[in-house]
Amino acid sequence: MKSKIWKLILMAAFPVIFWFTPPPDGLTVEAWRLLGFYLLAIVGLILRPFSEPLVLLSAVAFAGIFLNNTKDLLVGYSNTTIWLVFSAFAISTAFVKTGLGKRIAYVMIRSFGSTTLRLGYVTAFLDFIISPVTPSNTARSGGIVFPIIHSVAKALGSEPGETAKKAGSYLIINTYYTMKVTSFMFITAMAPNLLTADFMNKILGTNLNWGNWAAGLVVPGLILLLIYPFIGYYLDKPEIKRINNKEIARQGLAELGVMQPTEKLLIAIFILALVGWAAPSLLSLIGIKFTLNATAVALVAMVLAFLFGVIGWGDMLANKAAWNTLIWFGGIIGMATALDKAKIFDWLAHTISTNVSFTYSPFTVLCILGFLSIVVRYFFASASSYVVAMLPVFLTIGKAAGADPMALALLLAGTNSFGGLVTHYGAGVAPILFGAGYNRVTKWWINGAIMAFIGFIVFITLGYAWWDLIGLLQS
Amino acid sequence: MKSKIWKLILMAAFPVIFWFTPPPDGLTVEAWRLLGFYLLAIVGLILRPFSEPLVLLSAVAFAGIFLNNTKDLLVGYSNTTIWLVFSAFAISTAFVKTGLGKRIAYVMIRSFGSTTLRLGYVTAFLDFIISPVTPSNTARSGGIVFPIIHSVAKALGSEPGETAKKAGSYLIINTYYTMKVTSFMFITAMAPNLLTADFMNKILGTNLNWGNWAAGLVVPGLILLLIYPFIGYYLDKPEIKRINNKEIARQGLAELGVMQPTEKLLIAIFILALVGWAAPSLLSLIGIKFTLNATAVALVAMVLAFLFGVIGWGDMLANKAAWNTLIWFGGIIGMATALDKAKIFDWLAHTISTNVSFTYSPFTVLCILGFLSIVVRYFFASASSYVVAMLPVFLTIGKAAGADPMALALLLAGTNSFGGLVTHYGAGVAPILFGAGYNRVTKWWINGAIMAFIGFIVFITLGYAWWDLIGLLQS
Repeated sequence: MKSKIWKLILMAAFPVIFWFTPPPDGLTVEAWRLLGFYLLAIVGLILRPFSEPLVLLSAVAFAGIFLNNTKDLLVGYSNTTIWLVFSAFAISTAFVKTGLGKRIAYVMIRSFGSTTLRLGYVTAFLDFIISPVTPSNTARSGGIVFPIIHSVAKALGSEPGETAKKAGSYLIINTYYTMKVTSFMFITAMAPNLLTADFMNKILGTNLNWGNWAAGLVVPGLILLLIYPFIGYYLDKPEIKRINNKEIARQGLAELGVMQPTEKLLIAIFILALVGWAAPSLLSLIGIKFTLNATAVALVAMVLAFLFGVIGWGDMLANKAAWNTLIWFGGIIGMATALDKAKIFDWLAHTISTNVSFTYSPFTVLCILGFLSIVVRYFFASASSYVVAMLPVFLTIGKAAGADPMALALLLAGTNSFGGLVTHYGAGVAPILFGAGYNRVTKWWINGAIMAFIGFIVFITLGYAWWDLIGLLQS
Repeated sequence: MKSKIWKLILMAAFPVIFWFTPPPDGLTVEAWRLLGFYLLAIVGLILRPFSEPLVLLSAVAFAGIFLNNTKDLLVGYSNTTIWLVFSAFAISTAFVKTGLGKRIAYVMIRSFGSTTLRLGYVTAFLDFIISPVTPSNTARSGGIVFPIIHSVAKALGSEPGETAKKAGSYLIINTYYTMKVTSFMFITAMAPNLLTADFMNKILGTNLNWGNWAAGLVVPGLILLLIYPFIGYYLDKPEIKRINNKEIARQGLAELGVMQPTEKLLIAIFILALVGWAAPSLLSLIGIKFTLNATAVALVAMVLAFLFGVIGWGDMLANKAAWNTLIWFGGIIGMATALDKAKIFDWLAHTISTNVSFTYSPFTVLCILGFLSIVVRYFFASASSYVVAMLPVFLTIGKAAGADPMALALLLAGTNSFGGLVTHYGAGVAPILFGAGYNRVTKWWINGAIMAFIGFIVFITLGYAWWDLIGLLQS
């Protein structure tokens, strides 16, 4: 209680101080004060005296009443990316509710999971398959992938403690690695991505959408999905090698029962959504231009899931993550839009570029920022608080220093996710995975740092080359 | 199932027909097709093959994908009135959760409820007091007022059937009458009001907000709250006259226990919200101009309720009416905004005024439209479906015929609510009240028609004079 009051005081301090101090050159009083309220939101998201939606509602409410700009602060709620992600939540609800997610998992285990290493790859590609439609990576990794991998570990006689190394310690930490990869591959694979895309488009002037995001990041993602389970295997070699995957799959599938019509419908809707999202980008590669709004596709997919009874509206109402995402990302996007309109990012970039002389090449700038964006993750307990606090700063510096906008955007979209590998609190699902008790902190941190470093290297070499190849870069 | 498919076919028929027919003179192809999707929504809201949020999500999704205007259709979600009402839902949740609503009821019963007639007035003013912060009139009337009045009736030995006339039949139908009055008095007293305000501001060019809405409608409302319980009493005179109100209140209050700190905080927040909403209008009466955005006030009130622990974020997440309102009113406002941008209302008004010559005076037009807006309510099962289907038509005709914009707006805001008195399915709470079994359909319909007619007369006489007096009218 006492600590909560201190947190609230610290939050309130920023708007109060900014209110009573004059703005620096080049900023209006309103812009300066708005920045104070934005800092209230950042501090709130880091200290978390209460949940994120409440932090944002507070920031919007008080900024609205003191700055009389409520209308401007609410624009985030009509942001198309918010509704893209919101709709994807409905599909993810369907994956859990129908049991289709688990069914895919067991089928993959049956077909490919005959060794612990292969099981590591099954984890990776299971996560990959469902990632485009599960914006809550906590739900995906913690709700679909983890329960199955955990039960496989236990079936193999691997429990926390002495038997952890039999299979569990590898399989569980590998779930974390792969989740951190799949989460950056699609805008819809992690809720904060909608925010990063919005910041990038505002600050860097990029035009990130579902299609070019995936075009840029699926390839580096697939490379890492091939690398991580392998390296993880040799960093923490499980004692058990061979697995009776047929029996595990048989039991799991027997529990799920016969495939239901709703599952088949869901597969159709899922494919429809993927095709709808990817088609414009794929066709533009062969010179055909046509527009298909990704949000419209997502809304149609969601509506079809409801119309065909795959899920009910009540299931959606019970999906708290969807509503929390709507409220708090909508709030932060509203604030970011107001900051942008008040020219705060421009002012920041201008101030940096006139006061700092960058002697590094644009590519070196990219590498430095990418590296720093990973290092600071030791200080952030969630991707989202990192995004609101640090991303605008990195983007603005990168812009001022002349980094290629799209390269910077895609690199930071990546580090935003796999940067969280460095700690055991770097994602919402981390407490579940780490909390399963198979791994020790030191190993988690050391191996996580190795993985994050590998991710970084892949991005600035193969990733950069790929972006260049498909024409995403300016130079 | 079969009837559901027919309903869906009927819904889909409109956009299909509009897609393949040429637009009339003065409308673009896009506008015409958009109208087809709006009709899909109207038909869906009337036939209800599924719940309102789904109807609207379907309309937005399919319109978005076929007309490629998803961005435009989502603007409703940043509408300030939506967030005003959404925030009020939080306060109403607090009224139910803390028990403050019931406590106020029992205190009023103790102080004023010594006869059945006086109990009728207690119902009316209890409903009135909590109406500004309970946008779900179903929750207000069905969740707070009805349970108490119902238990009072039962305590008096009045049950459905032979003893209904002892007290129950009067007290229950009176709950319906008064709810239909309080619901029009404040924008925040019934969710559809946010939609009517939006339509009126768009089509008539009025500037309805929380303040001037209340300024115009509280007075006619109070008049009706004085008239209805009295007339209702003589239309259906209860056999029991005197009531042991002290004992009823004692038992009710004993059940609630000692007043909690959260209830006191809620009273403070409630007063703060009312003052914040009313202050700009009240001060402008004495010549002081100052702006205070009603939505900002509501957001602050909601946030304070969370910060002081009066309610938790979980309580809000569980308030399905709030989320349903957000989704479906946001969707319809987005569609209405797109219709407005496509000049459909202008075109309709122009078409009417060039093809019909209005020989009636503006005041006669007002009376005719007000009367018709009540009559058509026999055909609508909810205020909301009436609003989306008929209100734009009435407003456009009124505009074309030269009715005073504010008078028309306020009159139709009133009939939108009390017009529903004419049937036993004219509101979400009607099934609860009628379903209690104390009243027969014929009586409900006849007395309801009498009450609606009285409401109409009060509006076009005293109401109109009041609006004139406080300077709301143009002429």
